[in-house]
Amino acid sequence: MGTENRAGANTTFFTVKWEEAGVVLLDQRKLPQEETYLTCKTYGEVAEAIRAMVVRGAPAIGVTAAMGVALGIKNSTAGELKELAAELDVISKTLLETRPTAVNLPWALKRMKETFERSRAAATGTEAEKIQAVRRDLTEEAERMLVEDIAICEAIGRNGAGLIEESGNILTHCNAGALATGGYGTALGVVRSAVAQGKSVHVFADETRPFLQGARLTAWELQKDGIPVTLITDNMAGHFMHQGQVQCVIVGADRIASNGDVANKIGTYSLAVLARENGLPFYVAAPLSTIDRDMPSGEQISIEERSPGEVTELRGISIAPAGVPARHPAFDVTPHRYVTAIITERGVAREPFTEALNQFFSSEK
Amino acid sequence: MGTENRAGANTTFFTVKWEEAGVVLLDQRKLPQEETYLTCKTYGEVAEAIRAMVVRGAPAIGVTAAMGVALGIKNSTAGELKELAAELDVISKTLLETRPTAVNLPWALKRMKETFERSRAAATGTEAEKIQAVRRDLTEEAERMLVEDIAICEAIGRNGAGLIEESGNILTHCNAGALATGGYGTALGVVRSAVAQGKSVHVFADETRPFLQGARLTAWELQKDGIPVTLITDNMAGHFMHQGQVQCVIVGADRIASNGDVANKIGTYSLAVLARENGLPFYVAAPLSTIDRDMPSGEQISIEERSPGEVTELRGISIAPAGVPARHPAFDVTPHRYVTAIITERGVAREPFTEALNQFFSSEK
Repeated sequence: MGTENRAGANTTFFTVKWEEAGVVLLDQRKLPQEETYLTCKTYGEVAEAIRAMVVRGAPAIGVTAAMGVALGIKNSTAGELKELAAELDVISKTLLETRPTAVNLPWALKRMKETFERSRAAATGTEAEKIQAVRRDLTEEAERMLVEDIAICEAIGRNGAGLIEESGNILTHCNAGALATGGYGTALGVVRSAVAQGKSVHVFADETRPFLQGARLTAWELQKDGIPVTLITDNMAGHFMHQGQVQCVIVGADRIASNGDVANKIGTYSLAVLARENGLPFYVAAPLSTIDRDMPSGEQISIEERSPGEVTELRGISIAPAGVPARHPAFDVTPHRYVTAIITERGVAREPFTEALNQFFSSEK
Repeated sequence: MGTENRAGANTTFFTVKWEEAGVVLLDQRKLPQEETYLTCKTYGEVAEAIRAMVVRGAPAIGVTAAMGVALGIKNSTAGELKELAAELDVISKTLLETRPTAVNLPWALKRMKETFERSRAAATGTEAEKIQAVRRDLTEEAERMLVEDIAICEAIGRNGAGLIEESGNILTHCNAGALATGGYGTALGVVRSAVAQGKSVHVFADETRPFLQGARLTAWELQKDGIPVTLITDNMAGHFMHQGQVQCVIVGADRIASNGDVANKIGTYSLAVLARENGLPFYVAAPLSTIDRDMPSGEQISIEERSPGEVTELRGISIAPAGVPARHPAFDVTPHRYVTAIITERGVAREPFTEALNQFFSSEK
């Protein structure tokens, strides 16, 4: 399989794409050693790929899940729309249960469900023709969501670039880059946009234990794009802030409550506290689809607890004594009081976040 | 080689010991997979073992260096005391240059030098007899320093145990345990002492990247002693504090300035900030030998920058793209304003630290 770039114009790889054969994903578990692409031929394979973190990052999970729905419906042998609707529910449920924290997943599934309903209502002709129309509409919608996601990231980048100083060091955590989205990235979209504006930035990438998304993914995609990056362990971030070697922190988000509380990769809360303690701006870059308007505060956000084995082993090598218990919350919640601004495709929100974000949603309609 | 325990009464292994054949060290690089002991037969081998982190932890480095001096003098073929004194300087210099941050290293070397001078002045008989007496005195002094170090850790443990609640979770970073000292430990000495008093404590051990001293060493020695421990990645510590799952933080130290600023394993500063933000006590447990009275504040402390390869590779496996730059400061400095108390063998010091610590030194004389 080739590595043709249909994604962001500024990246030399793609995260997810739709092909006749199925949903094609860059296997992020194998980066940076191997750049290999995996074709999921069933929605079950798509669900497993999300669960196993072949693809990760809230926006990328959303787009991939939408394609999973389209694939499931495309592969369906249902002879009636009613049967197809029942299958859609099963497909959605399977995809929904893969990971609990990223809100882009239910957001994407809801959008696909609405598309299904709209398409079903509009469809004419025989039952077979109607089914054909629904299938086509769902495929088109999923592909549209990918294109939109990249455009949204580019808008986030433009909106955020103004917050970046002419030169300096930006600290980021996990991977909120092209690999976490349809392309271009959220936090790294801001970095790419600042670089495109001629700003002289350098990125400190937290390695982000236990999955090492920073070491494996952020370092990889920035290096590929020629953006200066230095890898550090998570526990060095505070030290470099304290030493005056960091000018701002930018991260992505997996779910943002209406009040601006941010669920993101484990370690984000610590960075936010450390940034405030050192007088540094702490920015969150995310599409509006990451904002969960049904959630008044971050306290209600469900935090995925993954296998302790992902902490005690690294590539099959045990790094701890046999039998030692470990914990593995995959995310944490940063209270909005630590967040300087949330950078979205509609603009930059600041406190009070509830009002600022509401305004973006109103202007969307 | 056996694993006879001549060290702390509460541990089932030893960190360093003096034998006729040389200085025997538990090879901490191989833990937790293998418990093997390495015999250094020359002072050069002792220096290399310190540099390569076969042994680490400020108090353990001090004791090991003292034994390195005794070994070098024992092996010397010098026929005159004057010649032996010159050799002592070469031996000391070699050992001093192994690692820059732990002050226990120069402290131990100074003490051995003073012992040499005292012994030389007191020696009687022929030149050969005098040399023999000096050799014996240095060996005895180094062995005494090991015994003292364990007694000091036990005193630190007793002094600190009162600060620990009847039950709860203690967060620790790196390894400030029996493995970091002659035996028993500083931070973990406090834990051991609280357990001995019947307190129901559970330890959260930060894995402590990049060397994983928490995962490999702290988890190992607590598990061996039957003290409940849960391993977490460094970036989870803040989250668990914020969730109310941590009652206090205790760490060791590599060098403490007169004003109470603490140099310790990279990541310590972040924990101190997070503890204060969450209203939790942040304790530093260390012997008086870790206090550098010549250093008014932490700003002057030299921070060892180790090889970036130790960040980008883990047991020979590359975890980052080839050629990505990395940083590796091995320590950071925590300003004293974040430190609730410093637990020493003489008692518990609180702000103003300068006065409190001075008092301990006065009472030492």
